[in-house]
Amino acid sequence: MHTTKELQKKVSEIFDNQNYIGEPKGLYEPIQYSLSQGGKRLRPLLALLGCSVFGGDLEKVIPPAIGLEIFHNFTLLHDDIMDQAAIRRGQPSVYTKWDTNTAILSGDTMFVLAYDYVTKTEAKYLVDVLQIFNQTAREVCEGQQYDMNYETQEFVGVKDYIEMIRLKTAVLIAAALKIGAIVAAADAKDTQKIYDFGINIGLAFQLRDDLLDAFGEQEVFGKPIGNDIVTNKKTFLYIIAYDKADSSQTDRLDRSFKLQNNVEKVSSVLEIYNQLDIKKETEKMIETYFEKSIQYLDNITLAKEKKEELYSFAKGLMSREV
Amino acid sequence: MHTTKELQKKVSEIFDNQNYIGEPKGLYEPIQYSLSQGGKRLRPLLALLGCSVFGGDLEKVIPPAIGLEIFHNFTLLHDDIMDQAAIRRGQPSVYTKWDTNTAILSGDTMFVLAYDYVTKTEAKYLVDVLQIFNQTAREVCEGQQYDMNYETQEFVGVKDYIEMIRLKTAVLIAAALKIGAIVAAADAKDTQKIYDFGINIGLAFQLRDDLLDAFGEQEVFGKPIGNDIVTNKKTFLYIIAYDKADSSQTDRLDRSFKLQNNVEKVSSVLEIYNQLDIKKETEKMIETYFEKSIQYLDNITLAKEKKEELYSFAKGLMSREV
Repeated sequence: MHTTKELQKKVSEIFDNQNYIGEPKGLYEPIQYSLSQGGKRLRPLLALLGCSVFGGDLEKVIPPAIGLEIFHNFTLLHDDIMDQAAIRRGQPSVYTKWDTNTAILSGDTMFVLAYDYVTKTEAKYLVDVLQIFNQTAREVCEGQQYDMNYETQEFVGVKDYIEMIRLKTAVLIAAALKIGAIVAAADAKDTQKIYDFGINIGLAFQLRDDLLDAFGEQEVFGKPIGNDIVTNKKTFLYIIAYDKADSSQTDRLDRSFKLQNNVEKVSSVLEIYNQLDIKKETEKMIETYFEKSIQYLDNITLAKEKKEELYSFAKGLMSREV
Repeated sequence: MHTTKELQKKVSEIFDNQNYIGEPKGLYEPIQYSLSQGGKRLRPLLALLGCSVFGGDLEKVIPPAIGLEIFHNFTLLHDDIMDQAAIRRGQPSVYTKWDTNTAILSGDTMFVLAYDYVTKTEAKYLVDVLQIFNQTAREVCEGQQYDMNYETQEFVGVKDYIEMIRLKTAVLIAAALKIGAIVAAADAKDTQKIYDFGINIGLAFQLRDDLLDAFGEQEVFGKPIGNDIVTNKKTFLYIIAYDKADSSQTDRLDRSFKLQNNVEKVSSVLEIYNQLDIKKETEKMIETYFEKSIQYLDNITLAKEKKEELYSFAKGLMSREV
């Protein structure tokens, strides 16, 4: 058993020592750039944590953990093209710094690299790890497609939205934990439970992200506040606001979302959100998923003290200490 | 042992019965479109052929063979964006029929699907198959990068060019044959020899493609003649022409490649190619790679009659009957 702090240190060491440069340089330099930018390294950390709580040998989880992080960064390269996101982690995104073709092809190469690392998983766990990895990769693509569809789709229901963030965000968090459990030879039931823990904590995490975008403090959140409102993004808050609004409030929401001045727009939308108690509604939903995740954790057949790091990780994620 | 014709029939049956439609439709319809367009299905055929000559069970090679074809089609989706190729197999390419974002994301999903099929390889061959598949996927990306670099790079040598087409085209042909041999439990030396056979026949195949683009008959070639000249593509012919040209011929080549009228341009470049005997030079090079491929084939430790289909396949590829 290792503490989350120890595992974080290990993850940092692994990635500080990675070198992805090869020939042709035009292909590998953007990969090195993307993978050197840091970020939370949440997915490899969760893979190590999943392995550690089941008493597994950390060396066995390192290759697929690296694969998970490279895969995640590959999706960012391509998502940034599709979403025209010029900035990533405070730096120019790859398609901005180089060009679209580079972001496509270096991204594809990262996808191969991810599989290269996953393939290094010990042979007896390889098929199980590949199956969840393939399934997850496919679901992440499906999630991105729904996300893009929702930009132009007039009505998006709460269920649609939750399914989209499950696919786009939660499944990779859950897969990281599950892969850790698999290579620690956890039994199939516990492996499924840690996966379901991951899904629910992943949903809570994304809803919290939606909430902080509207109601957070910029220094803590690390991104400008109100960006989702400015871009008319159909977040959880947006969807339940329209769901709860009466016809006059709906009109006001429509008018507010059409305002050209961003400062006015954000404050006008927030005013209606406040009237509709959207913050509280969202917090309630986050709490629901958090509680559900804890139930799955409770049911994993390990002594409570062995699961301690997962409990405090979940709590930390909710208060954004991680 | 099966004849190439029998195997071609089997490949057709496999792909005629594939259905890739899933949800969301916007993600899977372009995949269905791409994979229903036919094409030569050369790579799965070679995987079956590689398996068959070594007396393997064809059922074992079908999943990775499907994976190879899906992978190949994935690269076409992304290459068509990068190369701005509006037409593919006589139909609008995916990025033209839908849009760039669709071609990126449906392409990514095809890449996952390819791995999904490869993962279905029998467990005892899985690591070997994945290793060559990963290596090949990476090399194909590298080949595409070199190809794009060469568009703007002033000097490209013959060696550079051969290395580029080895990566972009030959390695996938060779990998298909090798994967067939692996799942037929061929020994490591023979597996390497069939791979090297594939590399050389792949190089010969691509050089023949370059040749036909300039000197072929449109009905036989299936594409408009002279397209490489019109687009100033640095093909094998272009490179050796500049290599052989004296200073006055170099000037004439430069001037010809700058002509605005495409009919004039093609005939003017072809005139210089003819003076420089480029057709013969290219045919000599094709013959060299063809002979080399046959040597590797000769050295595979199987009775000559068992290799018959590979010999005639190689000859057929050279006369473009396949």
